[in-house]
Amino acid sequence: MLALSELNPNLRTAQYAVRGTIVIRAQQLEEQGRKIIYCNIGNPQALKQKPLSYMRQTLSLLEYPELLNHPETLKLYPKDIVARVKSILERHPHGTGAYTQSAGIPFIRQAVADFIHRRDNIPADREHVILTDGASKGVQGTILALLKTHHSGFMIPIPQYPLYSATIDLYGGRQIGYFLDENSTWQLNEAILAESITEAKAKGIDPVAIAVINPGNPTGAVLSRDNIVMIINFARQHNLAIMADEVYQENVYDPKVKFHSFAKVLVEMGEKGVSLFSFHSVSKGFLGECGHRGGYMELRNVSDELLAQFIKLQSISLCSNVDGQIATYLMVSPPQAGEESFDRYSSERDAILGDLKAKARILGEGLNGIPGMAVDVPQGAMYAFVRFELPPEKGVDVCAMNSKERETYEAKRDSDYCMTLLEETGICVVPGSGFGQLPGTLHFRTTFLPPRDEIEALVVKMKEFHESYVKRLSV
Amino acid sequence: MLALSELNPNLRTAQYAVRGTIVIRAQQLEEQGRKIIYCNIGNPQALKQKPLSYMRQTLSLLEYPELLNHPETLKLYPKDIVARVKSILERHPHGTGAYTQSAGIPFIRQAVADFIHRRDNIPADREHVILTDGASKGVQGTILALLKTHHSGFMIPIPQYPLYSATIDLYGGRQIGYFLDENSTWQLNEAILAESITEAKAKGIDPVAIAVINPGNPTGAVLSRDNIVMIINFARQHNLAIMADEVYQENVYDPKVKFHSFAKVLVEMGEKGVSLFSFHSVSKGFLGECGHRGGYMELRNVSDELLAQFIKLQSISLCSNVDGQIATYLMVSPPQAGEESFDRYSSERDAILGDLKAKARILGEGLNGIPGMAVDVPQGAMYAFVRFELPPEKGVDVCAMNSKERETYEAKRDSDYCMTLLEETGICVVPGSGFGQLPGTLHFRTTFLPPRDEIEALVVKMKEFHESYVKRLSV
Repeated sequence: MLALSELNPNLRTAQYAVRGTIVIRAQQLEEQGRKIIYCNIGNPQALKQKPLSYMRQTLSLLEYPELLNHPETLKLYPKDIVARVKSILERHPHGTGAYTQSAGIPFIRQAVADFIHRRDNIPADREHVILTDGASKGVQGTILALLKTHHSGFMIPIPQYPLYSATIDLYGGRQIGYFLDENSTWQLNEAILAESITEAKAKGIDPVAIAVINPGNPTGAVLSRDNIVMIINFARQHNLAIMADEVYQENVYDPKVKFHSFAKVLVEMGEKGVSLFSFHSVSKGFLGECGHRGGYMELRNVSDELLAQFIKLQSISLCSNVDGQIATYLMVSPPQAGEESFDRYSSERDAILGDLKAKARILGEGLNGIPGMAVDVPQGAMYAFVRFELPPEKGVDVCAMNSKERETYEAKRDSDYCMTLLEETGICVVPGSGFGQLPGTLHFRTTFLPPRDEIEALVVKMKEFHESYVKRLSV
Repeated sequence: MLALSELNPNLRTAQYAVRGTIVIRAQQLEEQGRKIIYCNIGNPQALKQKPLSYMRQTLSLLEYPELLNHPETLKLYPKDIVARVKSILERHPHGTGAYTQSAGIPFIRQAVADFIHRRDNIPADREHVILTDGASKGVQGTILALLKTHHSGFMIPIPQYPLYSATIDLYGGRQIGYFLDENSTWQLNEAILAESITEAKAKGIDPVAIAVINPGNPTGAVLSRDNIVMIINFARQHNLAIMADEVYQENVYDPKVKFHSFAKVLVEMGEKGVSLFSFHSVSKGFLGECGHRGGYMELRNVSDELLAQFIKLQSISLCSNVDGQIATYLMVSPPQAGEESFDRYSSERDAILGDLKAKARILGEGLNGIPGMAVDVPQGAMYAFVRFELPPEKGVDVCAMNSKERETYEAKRDSDYCMTLLEETGICVVPGSGFGQLPGTLHFRTTFLPPRDEIEALVVKMKEFHESYVKRLSV
């Protein structure tokens, strides 16, 4: 029988905190009948967010096109949806049941290119668009493709979404962490980037790419245009490709900030040397269609030969799932004014985004008001990365520890905190150490996805819990 | 800008012939208005096979559950489908739009375990079932997990489905090819297996697993129970895990043979030492739902710790797509006698399988009747691996070549043949070298999926083409 020791050691190393031990414990408690408030993962429809009607009506009719022959169908589906399904089937007669071309259905790749053009007022080429099973598969493929040797290093933010660290570990590459600047709304800092890359090179790491998540996960921060210009210049200077994770581009709540895509800034700078891989998904925004695993990646400043290698990589898994491809099409091509579905689409969209905006404020202000906790109201995304203070443990001198020991010690502290929180209140959040944090600081990541009344209750419970937990440690 | 030479060299090495240069050329010709007969890939619904109604009705209603509130819905959907959708939503209220647990929706994992139990009359545990995006993702994950070092070797058949060779190359492992015995209906041969593994060890390769495709791709062969017993004994003797690719288990046409799962034979042998990974998919059988990317893997004789590592691997990509999970549920849990959908389901299923059986015979007998071609009527799957003879080329002495040179030369010969076939007739098949073949032999793989009249026309065209091609070479 296969022993654990016979497995790929990289698999054993890889950690994915968003679904780690605390979440597994939460599922156990739930099976025992406890009510759990899942704030661990950006999974809106598991937290009562409703799908957009135009999306589901289209998928429903497309799964069963025989309905188009029944007069009753017109009573159940809006006219523009019926017309749209007919138009999809004209362009793609195989429907949802056949493998597509490896990079995805051509007209959908074109629709994505049109979307980028409209969004950014820049040229976009459908041949440089690849449809993927969510953004995750695009990110994983890109990391695998750019991993030239086991010294190849990927610059990733601290804190980061653990897809990055897990995938780099899994494929045997090297992580180069760079700290985000909590004191200036989690922007990137050039001096810190430079320091990270210098340190990495001194360790024999060969930096190949920098990953940036904008709006941020877990930080909820939106990067300024100047910050993006700095990053692109930094990438050129150090011969790095850029991986731009832009899945939260629709999730911007603070009217003082604006989403800028890396593609747009790159083109406006006239930058032709830096290769850019941008990722988007149907899972976030106001759609929240996580279960459909749809998304795309766009490649810029890459040669045709390089593009062909990415498409070959996709071909080994044949193609992304077709419903996900269709969902991606519907994301980039929503109902237009004048169409029957437009009003319902607009009001559903606005309600979801308005609700998220309100909940970001309730959560941010509420938790920030708890003595010993600090967090800005999230500017975007679906998360707050909340800093909290615990009294020093008696008899423990962190200054006597080396950096590895200290990291382990602090990871245990925030994990214990989150596990106790779960056991006592049913609130499931992810310890900051799962994303990475500055030594000497403790955090947890929480979503603000639960319904508004639950968020309000959560703030109250968190306050009670935190006070009680601190009191116990101080005894 | 990223240069090709900066990419992962393993990606550049990996080849996936089923979607290689000949297929890309076919797509070009099609865009120019040529009619192409796609026999390169097992993609039934792209070749006019209709989806099963119960499958699509269920998915359609599940995508848009609001329909359950409309009285018209009952005119459009059978009663049992409506009841089934309600029952799915009771057990899984999040529907299709939320991430599921990493290993899949619990009740579907249970339904898969029940299916295995019914099929094989053996115990099956839902905790050992993981739902995957098609079988491909299960195979890829297993190869990655078992790749302990870059000397780890995977025994794969020659000819094989190139998912295996491509994935092993991609992750930097070693292929250990073993020839299938064309003279005894492509069964595995113990002496050949032993020889392959001895040779591999002499090269410093550490064999960790043996992959078996049953029914065979590209061979169309069904393994006998004795053959499976031999393979399990061989695996135990050499401390190998078994990867059993059983996606064609429903595609058995020859009444003299029967599909035996590795799981069943393993349990009947009382074998507790050999770890087994079995794969199944909604893409093949009579469903042909390739675009939905649904499937599962079942793990046997593995420890809980090892299982946890596989589930963690799945968690890094969050979960497989939910429509694919539902399609898998419907595959293992079809309509039952007494339900409104049963008759339609049975007649659709029987029509598809009957048609495939007839086409296997038309293709096999037709091609076998062409002078210079040899193939058995496929016993199962969707493919024939057709051997063909070409006259020796003047001035070329293959015996003076080393084995690598000879492989390259023969790969060029069968590729040129298939490319010319495409250009002259529009028939798109895959050269045997894309799957591997015994030195000195030439093959191509063709599906028997196109409609019956096209298969008949294909046989005629192949005969004309082959005669003409041979004549040209003989001048």
